[in-house]
Amino acid sequence: MKKESKARKSIVGLALEILEQVENRQPPSLELPLRTVDNIIFDERKGHYVLGPKKAVRTSRNVKHLKPLTQLIWVASLARKLIDEDKTSTLRDVFYMAEGVDLGFEDQSESDRIITELESVVGSPREDFNIYPEERSAIFADLTIEYTVKGYEGRRINLTSHPDGLMIGPALATSRFVKTSADKVLCIEKGAMFTRFVEEKAWKKYNAILIHTAGQAPRATRRLIRRLNVELDLPVYIFTDADPWGLHIAQVIISGSANAAHVPELATPKARWMGVYASDIEEYKLPSTKLLDVDIKRLNELKKDKRYAKDPWKREINRFFEIKRKAEQEAFSKYGLSFMVDVYLKKRLA
Amino acid sequence: MKKESKARKSIVGLALEILEQVENRQPPSLELPLRTVDNIIFDERKGHYVLGPKKAVRTSRNVKHLKPLTQLIWVASLARKLIDEDKTSTLRDVFYMAEGVDLGFEDQSESDRIITELESVVGSPREDFNIYPEERSAIFADLTIEYTVKGYEGRRINLTSHPDGLMIGPALATSRFVKTSADKVLCIEKGAMFTRFVEEKAWKKYNAILIHTAGQAPRATRRLIRRLNVELDLPVYIFTDADPWGLHIAQVIISGSANAAHVPELATPKARWMGVYASDIEEYKLPSTKLLDVDIKRLNELKKDKRYAKDPWKREINRFFEIKRKAEQEAFSKYGLSFMVDVYLKKRLA
Repeated sequence: MKKESKARKSIVGLALEILEQVENRQPPSLELPLRTVDNIIFDERKGHYVLGPKKAVRTSRNVKHLKPLTQLIWVASLARKLIDEDKTSTLRDVFYMAEGVDLGFEDQSESDRIITELESVVGSPREDFNIYPEERSAIFADLTIEYTVKGYEGRRINLTSHPDGLMIGPALATSRFVKTSADKVLCIEKGAMFTRFVEEKAWKKYNAILIHTAGQAPRATRRLIRRLNVELDLPVYIFTDADPWGLHIAQVIISGSANAAHVPELATPKARWMGVYASDIEEYKLPSTKLLDVDIKRLNELKKDKRYAKDPWKREINRFFEIKRKAEQEAFSKYGLSFMVDVYLKKRLA
Repeated sequence: MKKESKARKSIVGLALEILEQVENRQPPSLELPLRTVDNIIFDERKGHYVLGPKKAVRTSRNVKHLKPLTQLIWVASLARKLIDEDKTSTLRDVFYMAEGVDLGFEDQSESDRIITELESVVGSPREDFNIYPEERSAIFADLTIEYTVKGYEGRRINLTSHPDGLMIGPALATSRFVKTSADKVLCIEKGAMFTRFVEEKAWKKYNAILIHTAGQAPRATRRLIRRLNVELDLPVYIFTDADPWGLHIAQVIISGSANAAHVPELATPKARWMGVYASDIEEYKLPSTKLLDVDIKRLNELKKDKRYAKDPWKREINRFFEIKRKAEQEAFSKYGLSFMVDVYLKKRLA
């Protein structure tokens, strides 16, 4: 069964539920999972955030609920339309479409929130009803995929076809995996480093699927990473800058974000952060800069987060506090363009 | 002759010139075009910025010149190496490689400046010696290209192969155009709008090559746009947000930037800005927001710039001052997902 069908089925189920209430002359109401802090729980066993059992009820008996309930139903009908017409959209787009109806949407944060609610009611990420982020990251791999989007059904492409890497947009994110020679996935924070890995044939030397996260990985990309891990059973390794932001880019790929606790399809708990470590800065004498106040503040926040309580996180956070410096992935260019792939990566993966 | 060969030839010429001076026991020196404000001239006839006739001399007789002269020679030798080894790099990479040598590079702005100097001495944009920007934009078109990068020589791909669009990286930027059914180029500021244009088959309906500029178009993209205009003789139309920043995104594609006056290969003087116009905000009753102080300030700057002295620029800048509002491309979503392509675009291109 296609994932989209599941989302569509839930949406239609939702609509039928409301319809039945109306036909029975009951004021329509809906139950939705609570997304408050006390209902967002880090599931140690699963390795990512989940929503707890608490529920909220939106009922048209309550005048205050009328607006958000109507907005939710409108967004649900829009979502069904997007699925049926095979069109993609963005959060921004939906906000502007909301401007075209008279349902009292104040600003984009309001339509964004309603979309998140729909995700939690339906139990599917918004990408399943074709609402995508703007940002695009990229992939390069000996992996053959088959498109499922309209006009391209059944067409295949190998992800080494374009040496600049293929953009991870709606079409790639929803494609079917056909065949790969790769036995691992390497996620890379920086575009320059991704291009380096392609040019230095890191993908061939290490049989790796290369993914450019473009900073914080967009949701469609995190989902693709999970699919590679789960469907193809490939281990996932993440390389970031050696700074608190790089740590968190890796952590979000691994355990998801609290914001998206209701869509666990975005986490890859088995993925591993492989550097650049704070300790590499000294070991490789990397060009580095002083940690700023904002970096220190962020490190203190991470230290309190239980997901950072184990090594390598804990060890490296302490190391950052000791050396008080940070470095970028490109810092390895000091040793020439091949060093990162031929020396560092080889050692780290061993 | 491949473009790269021209850059390589100039660099080797430069090296031979220095060598000859050394062999004749003269202190090495180099002449370079002055890039000061009074030597950056807007060429009305050509429609873009050019450097004037003024030159500066860097000579090792002058102790103050020693450092920048040595740095320039080092960057030139690095550039030749990048060409010979068929490797690409970024400004950031070059800075880190500079950290590996002991030539007194203080920070990235210093290595960036030296690279710009090399461009002006050699007379080729840095992309010709394989130094690329990080940002990536995208293209979707019935255009078949042939790669020239190592490992892909002679391989062809049609730019409709990937429905998410193909990234404009080093490989695509240096490819050869083989065949196209398109008769125009549409440049689009926003990714969501680009995806819309692909999905709504705007490329087919209007026989258009679609380019996503991703905000301010990266240099490699501006160069590709020029090549499409010059080599394939295709008219270029630019669609941006209706705000001062959108105006300037279009203007930079058309006339280049003052910063890059020494590399006219980046301008497409015949390209035309086609909207979203300030006047569209009222005509189409688009959702819009108030111009901020920073927008007003920017509009006042543009008003003083002679490139904005003619219509549609002049007319639309005045319109902005009248209505004091701005709008995004996605604002057309108010009328549904097809309106922009089926109504607005059709009318504007007619």
